[in-house]
Amino acid sequence: MQTFHITPPDETLRPLIQEKIDNLNKPKGSLGRLETLAMQICLAQQTLTPSLAHPCHLLLGGDHGIEREGVSVSPREVTWQQMINFTRGGGGVNMFCRQHGFHLRIVDVGVDYDLSQVPGILNRKIAPGTRNFLHEPAMTLDEYDRTLCVGIDLVNACHAEGCQVICLGEMGIANTSPSSIWMHLFCHIPLDECIGAGAGLNAAGINHKRDILHQALDNFQFSIFNFQFSIEDIIRYFGGFEMVAAIGAMLRAAELKMLILVDGFIMTACALAACQLHPAAKAYMIFGHCGDESGHRRMLEALGAEPLLSLGMRLGEGTGALCAFPIVDSAVRMMNEMNNFSNANITKYF
Amino acid sequence: MQTFHITPPDETLRPLIQEKIDNLNKPKGSLGRLETLAMQICLAQQTLTPSLAHPCHLLLGGDHGIEREGVSVSPREVTWQQMINFTRGGGGVNMFCRQHGFHLRIVDVGVDYDLSQVPGILNRKIAPGTRNFLHEPAMTLDEYDRTLCVGIDLVNACHAEGCQVICLGEMGIANTSPSSIWMHLFCHIPLDECIGAGAGLNAAGINHKRDILHQALDNFQFSIFNFQFSIEDIIRYFGGFEMVAAIGAMLRAAELKMLILVDGFIMTACALAACQLHPAAKAYMIFGHCGDESGHRRMLEALGAEPLLSLGMRLGEGTGALCAFPIVDSAVRMMNEMNNFSNANITKYF
Repeated sequence: MQTFHITPPDETLRPLIQEKIDNLNKPKGSLGRLETLAMQICLAQQTLTPSLAHPCHLLLGGDHGIEREGVSVSPREVTWQQMINFTRGGGGVNMFCRQHGFHLRIVDVGVDYDLSQVPGILNRKIAPGTRNFLHEPAMTLDEYDRTLCVGIDLVNACHAEGCQVICLGEMGIANTSPSSIWMHLFCHIPLDECIGAGAGLNAAGINHKRDILHQALDNFQFSIFNFQFSIEDIIRYFGGFEMVAAIGAMLRAAELKMLILVDGFIMTACALAACQLHPAAKAYMIFGHCGDESGHRRMLEALGAEPLLSLGMRLGEGTGALCAFPIVDSAVRMMNEMNNFSNANITKYF
Repeated sequence: MQTFHITPPDETLRPLIQEKIDNLNKPKGSLGRLETLAMQICLAQQTLTPSLAHPCHLLLGGDHGIEREGVSVSPREVTWQQMINFTRGGGGVNMFCRQHGFHLRIVDVGVDYDLSQVPGILNRKIAPGTRNFLHEPAMTLDEYDRTLCVGIDLVNACHAEGCQVICLGEMGIANTSPSSIWMHLFCHIPLDECIGAGAGLNAAGINHKRDILHQALDNFQFSIFNFQFSIEDIIRYFGGFEMVAAIGAMLRAAELKMLILVDGFIMTACALAACQLHPAAKAYMIFGHCGDESGHRRMLEALGAEPLLSLGMRLGEGTGALCAFPIVDSAVRMMNEMNNFSNANITKYF
């Protein structure tokens, strides 16, 4: 069983950080969200001069047993095809990693295809896809533990390279389905309101997805004695390998006080699960993006998260979070590069 | 009198651009706003492979006669102090220009201070501040024409260097006041709903600003025979030199089919005025940011503009538009760097 010792940032520095922000040569508060973001980053890093050294992106891939029920518009094979495509540099995640200087690691955590000989893909496969959670838990307790460790080890490797900010993305056909169920069970929002079109289901497809997820939820609840299920039970019963690895990565990053860039619906569901296990982790999370998947905004609200962008994106792979990185960089530059009223020789007017 | 020959982009290419976007290896529409942005840019540049060569930022400074009425929390001297500060690299605009690779030109169009000996400031001064529009037009017809020319000449210089995207920012204490009046007169929104806190007025300050602007508007309407005022009359009666130069710059950039990054409340008011003169200019404008100034969202709606960011910023200087530039860059990279379904060997699933 993995344990994490996650502590919230020490608040002692808050007044000093606020004083520095308020003395930058601009009307007080006029850089808006950049100022609250700078505060979060400075507290997480316990400094007045934050930095974003060596940003890394983990692209985690996995397949889902529930895909066999036809809950996704895309066929299962797209997972491995896209994983290979990412190694060639032509995916959405590749161009945004290049644009923003992220070191990309492409990791097979549970893809249903032998990728072990593909250069550029790290082989951390737990199994070729999860079990079908319509009928049984997606993974065993042992698989769950080992999957968390995949995320932990990946973050440790980034941290050893000097990484201060980690971004997480996923590739896993059908992974909006477990995300919707987690949202329902963790946020107590009616299941139907947690279910959306995924990569592009039509109305009939969404109805079918709803039927399947309701059945799966019923089966889960009756399978557990007296409805006494833990947070871990919920995570491992429905979660994908790529999702549980992301949770392990987030928790380890929070333990190391690294910044965590959170992407769209699926990664927000992982952040939600991580915060259910360890609420203190949230202080290290920056929510990049409010996506187009129905329910994402409500999940962010339930988390008390304020996303930086809202551009109607729903590609996954971490693309929304990557697009938000320049805003994070701007907040850091504000702390390090902007003059204050005294060294700028400006009449302080507010 | 300046004339502009602005034509909207030729639409012939639209289906080809859409086909290229739809064949990129992602679920159709899944890059959301990046896709509509890519369409706008490709149409403006009449290409399937857009580019953003040599981005330039024009920081235009000017003072306002109306500042004498106490409509701003900041004293007039802040305009010239900030102009000098910008030459030293420590302003908000400086750090974001550095971050995003913009060539910054700092231009005195009408600051009430002799900046002619300050290295790094282009001297295009029309007069040391506008007249007080509470009592008389802010500028004469001749001044209006010459100020438009300042903007035209600046854009011509950028264009000659190969610039394809221009960003505009302003420094001018009290310039939310003329912006509010333009918004009222061009959008037919009640004046009170166009007036906000500017750089940080309290409730009493906002009330005073309202009283002054109502009086100014009354005086203007009674000064014009039979209320027969033209768009140009409205612009020159209230506008600042930095604002009219921005309008000239926008119109010339649209004429040259360059992309125009539009910033917050004041620059959006200039975009509004420019589009009143030449509606076709709007096709070349990218609205970077919905700011925190009361009324900015409504002005954007009146323009039918969809801003890229909404980060509660209200610093001006073009900072909001600059922060949006990476999104524009992402849209361009999508067109140039992302694989399509056939060269990525992905099952096309939608």
